[in-house]
Amino acid sequence: MIKTLDEIAKFINGQLIGDKNIFVSQISPIKKAKEGDITFIFDKRELKKNQANQIDATCVVLPEDIETIFCPKIIVENPKLAFARLLELFNPTTLPPPGIHPTAIISKDAKIGKDVSIGAYVVIGDEVEIGDGVVIYPLTNIGHKVMVGNESILHSNVTIYDKVKIGKRVIIHSQTVIGSDGFGYIKTGSVHYKIPQKGEVVIEDDVEIGAGVTIDRATLGATVIGQGTKIDNLVHIGHNVKIGKNCIIVAQVGISGSVTIEDNVTIAGQAGVSDHVTIKENTIVAAQTGVMKDIGPNLIVSGLPARPHQEEMKIKALIQKLPLLAEKIKVLEKKAAELENR
Amino acid sequence: MIKTLDEIAKFINGQLIGDKNIFVSQISPIKKAKEGDITFIFDKRELKKNQANQIDATCVVLPEDIETIFCPKIIVENPKLAFARLLELFNPTTLPPPGIHPTAIISKDAKIGKDVSIGAYVVIGDEVEIGDGVVIYPLTNIGHKVMVGNESILHSNVTIYDKVKIGKRVIIHSQTVIGSDGFGYIKTGSVHYKIPQKGEVVIEDDVEIGAGVTIDRATLGATVIGQGTKIDNLVHIGHNVKIGKNCIIVAQVGISGSVTIEDNVTIAGQAGVSDHVTIKENTIVAAQTGVMKDIGPNLIVSGLPARPHQEEMKIKALIQKLPLLAEKIKVLEKKAAELENR
Amino acid sequence: MIKTLDEIAKFINGQLIGDKNIFVSQISPIKKAKEGDITFIFDKRELKKNQANQIDATCVVLPEDIETIFCPKIIVENPKLAFARLLELFNPTTLPPPGIHPTAIISKDAKIGKDVSIGAYVVIGDEVEIGDGVVIYPLTNIGHKVMVGNESILHSNVTIYDKVKIGKRVIIHSQTVIGSDGFGYIKTGSVHYKIPQKGEVVIEDDVEIGAGVTIDRATLGATVIGQGTKIDNLVHIGHNVKIGKNCIIVAQVGISGSVTIEDNVTIAGQAGVSDHVTIKENTIVAAQTGVMKDIGPNLIVSGLPARPHQEEMKIKALIQKLPLLAEKIKVLEKKAAELENR
Repeated sequence: MIKTLDEIAKFINGQLIGDKNIFVSQISPIKKAKEGDITFIFDKRELKKNQANQIDATCVVLPEDIETIFCPKIIVENPKLAFARLLELFNPTTLPPPGIHPTAIISKDAKIGKDVSIGAYVVIGDEVEIGDGVVIYPLTNIGHKVMVGNESILHSNVTIYDKVKIGKRVIIHSQTVIGSDGFGYIKTGSVHYKIPQKGEVVIEDDVEIGAGVTIDRATLGATVIGQGTKIDNLVHIGHNVKIGKNCIIVAQVGISGSVTIEDNVTIAGQAGVSDHVTIKENTIVAAQTGVMKDIGPNLIVSGLPARPHQEEMKIKALIQKLPLLAEKIKVLEKKAAELENR
Repeated sequence: MIKTLDEIAKFINGQLIGDKNIFVSQISPIKKAKEGDITFIFDKRELKKNQANQIDATCVVLPEDIETIFCPKIIVENPKLAFARLLELFNPTTLPPPGIHPTAIISKDAKIGKDVSIGAYVVIGDEVEIGDGVVIYPLTNIGHKVMVGNESILHSNVTIYDKVKIGKRVIIHSQTVIGSDGFGYIKTGSVHYKIPQKGEVVIEDDVEIGAGVTIDRATLGATVIGQGTKIDNLVHIGHNVKIGKNCIIVAQVGISGSVTIEDNVTIAGQAGVSDHVTIKENTIVAAQTGVMKDIGPNLIVSGLPARPHQEEMKIKALIQKLPLLAEKIKVLEKKAAELENR
Repeated sequence: MIKTLDEIAKFINGQLIGDKNIFVSQISPIKKAKEGDITFIFDKRELKKNQANQIDATCVVLPEDIETIFCPKIIVENPKLAFARLLELFNPTTLPPPGIHPTAIISKDAKIGKDVSIGAYVVIGDEVEIGDGVVIYPLTNIGHKVMVGNESILHSNVTIYDKVKIGKRVIIHSQTVIGSDGFGYIKTGSVHYKIPQKGEVVIEDDVEIGAGVTIDRATLGATVIGQGTKIDNLVHIGHNVKIGKNCIIVAQVGISGSVTIEDNVTIAGQAGVSDHVTIKENTIVAAQTGVMKDIGPNLIVSGLPARPHQEEMKIKALIQKLPLLAEKIKVLEKKAAELENR
């Protein structure tokens, strides 16, 4: 793919400083970029002065002009967004073409939309509805009474249990399981009696779910993943959980049953949330945190148990100083003994 | 499904207070329940007095009579058990009918029991024995010399390696792997030489295993999951591990190689157990705990490293007070200096 | 399999003390070993004196002679290596025979090497190159433009996305995903805009990857797993990560995006590494550690945040003593008050 700087500046709504007829053919990181490449400076502070002279790229996209850079520049408001859009421009995604592979086994009761691509050895159950433009990669299994909205993509080896509703433009990566039974038992004597899990899972529009994720169905009602929420790999989401809109759930997070997470919450990697807890909107939970009671809104928390991050930082600093504090206590004890003896 | 209160009271061995000919048609949570619904109060203390008047359900199941509730009531010893049983009554599970899908590839050396259901694109190896009434969902792979006991259910996209023994009434959810190689190497120079993993895995009767779980085969002998133990999603169980009967292993727990877990142990989410450790019977391990040496029996532990929970709670409270303790030390130092100067 | 002690001593380069014509037929752990078994003492210190008389094995392999053991002995330099080699000798691995199952769907553009075994319902995309002697178990999906080096083994239900390069003698266990999209978004308003993930994954020679692992493709460039590195189950490796040679990554470790891990690093179970961090060579990271900034080389670290292990041990010991320290402060306060009042 070859583009002129003029074409690129227009595509990313940027202001070009330099010759508009020059061509670039690929995106490269700043240190690796060479003749013919376009590169990015996301934040002026990243750039040390002596580096400016060493840029070998043909063009740099950046948030404001830097005079020590002499190659053609494109100034944009949001270089990260420009980067994402140019990445797609130079490396367009090629989805499998529409068509149903002859080995796909699709129930006669299923309704399949227009321009759908269904791969080899896909299995689709009764009363399933697949929207227009959906792509299902090979070896994925979809149970009964499942709905998949328009333009959603299910990668290979995915399992969707019965009665799961998936919205539009949802992306589900490989080995993810949606709708497995919630983990619920009643102890009768020494035996754990299984509580049947009869609810559903609802994945709203524009959700992306990473690889190897497990999302359990509700006991009654629905486990819900809100619109625009993004979930990383190997995340566990228990039964009856409600996640709001535009949340970010990073890899290996564990969310116990009946948790409520409101809109715009970020939970960083390997954090855990105890059952029945509510995390209110705009809360950020740091990595490896253990959230054991309701928190938020508009708060950064960390630690085990989770506390306001500033408080946790103070406590962590004092823990680091414990040897010193212990030493001070020893000195004080000695002085106290001396003073008593006077 | 419609049932009279009389039918329901008999089914759950309860005492009905109210008209036995009234019908109900579904179970609902207490706040959402309306005319025609049956709901539950699991514990009298959940119920605030003013809520009793607001119950719109047609019938409430509860552990003892509450006089401020005026609708028909059914008194039972264990409302949670009654809930589980009524959930199944109103929403009966429909397993796939017996039969072997023509695309299933089954070794001629495999023995398949009666009334077995084998889904599309299932692959079954040599010398496998599948018991009566077993259900295997699509796209599951079973290696050689595997035994699956009567009435067990394997969901789709499961992998069972060679030489795994699965008991009766075992449930295995999607994307779970049983019998992968244990993680064992010998360092010779800078290279890690693989220790072959030649043992087996034994899953005893009535075990349930969640989605995305990995259970490694033993180096020699067997990795064992004891009868009635329940394992949640994304749990890792290393080689040579022995888990006793009726244990509860919550999501994302990691159990290292050669660990022994005795009967009736509960390990909460994201906890980890170091290799060769024994957790004795009736121990409860809190979430995110790190068990690094033998613990139990009959103990609740938490923390990193794991300690008796009460001790950990005391320590956690003091950690919370560290800023205060540091302040007190500062005050004492000042006083000590003053006293010295007198 | 039956072998004479002479054959065995030669096979493991050991010095036999005892009758070279005696037969053994299997390996057993020392406590279970009986007539006809060969067993191992890896470290002399494991053996209590009174146990030496209780060995019922026909032969013991050990690192130096122990005079209180009277049965035939084989002295070797590295008993663990001898154990690994004898395990394979007595229990040889049987891989599926070469051949392509008729249900495998292989693109016409794919190049398949010699003596390759491809199982049932495997799907292989365009421009894929499969080396000689490769084994691919059933139900595995390989995207487009993937390379798999000679003698690599892919277990069942594995997913390899497009543009992944896998070296020689690589082993990938079931349910593992290689090449899923990295977790990258740009927030524009309240919406998370997806950064396309257009890079690759490179798995070098002699890597072993456990079950249920997820390795994300790079945004640009490649996520790299270095030669001889071994990865346990349910590990997450983010986009743009570079892992060096001969590393050990234990189960449920999470490695965030753009992390660099140099050669010979060990990361124990459930540890996490923050994005853009470098772990220098020969570093050992303890279980459940949180590595939040660059560490190493040649260091053992633990704690949250990660510190040198000795320092963390000292701090952990003081945390354990916090109730005592708090008590001491109380005593000091009392004494200070008394002294002031004098």
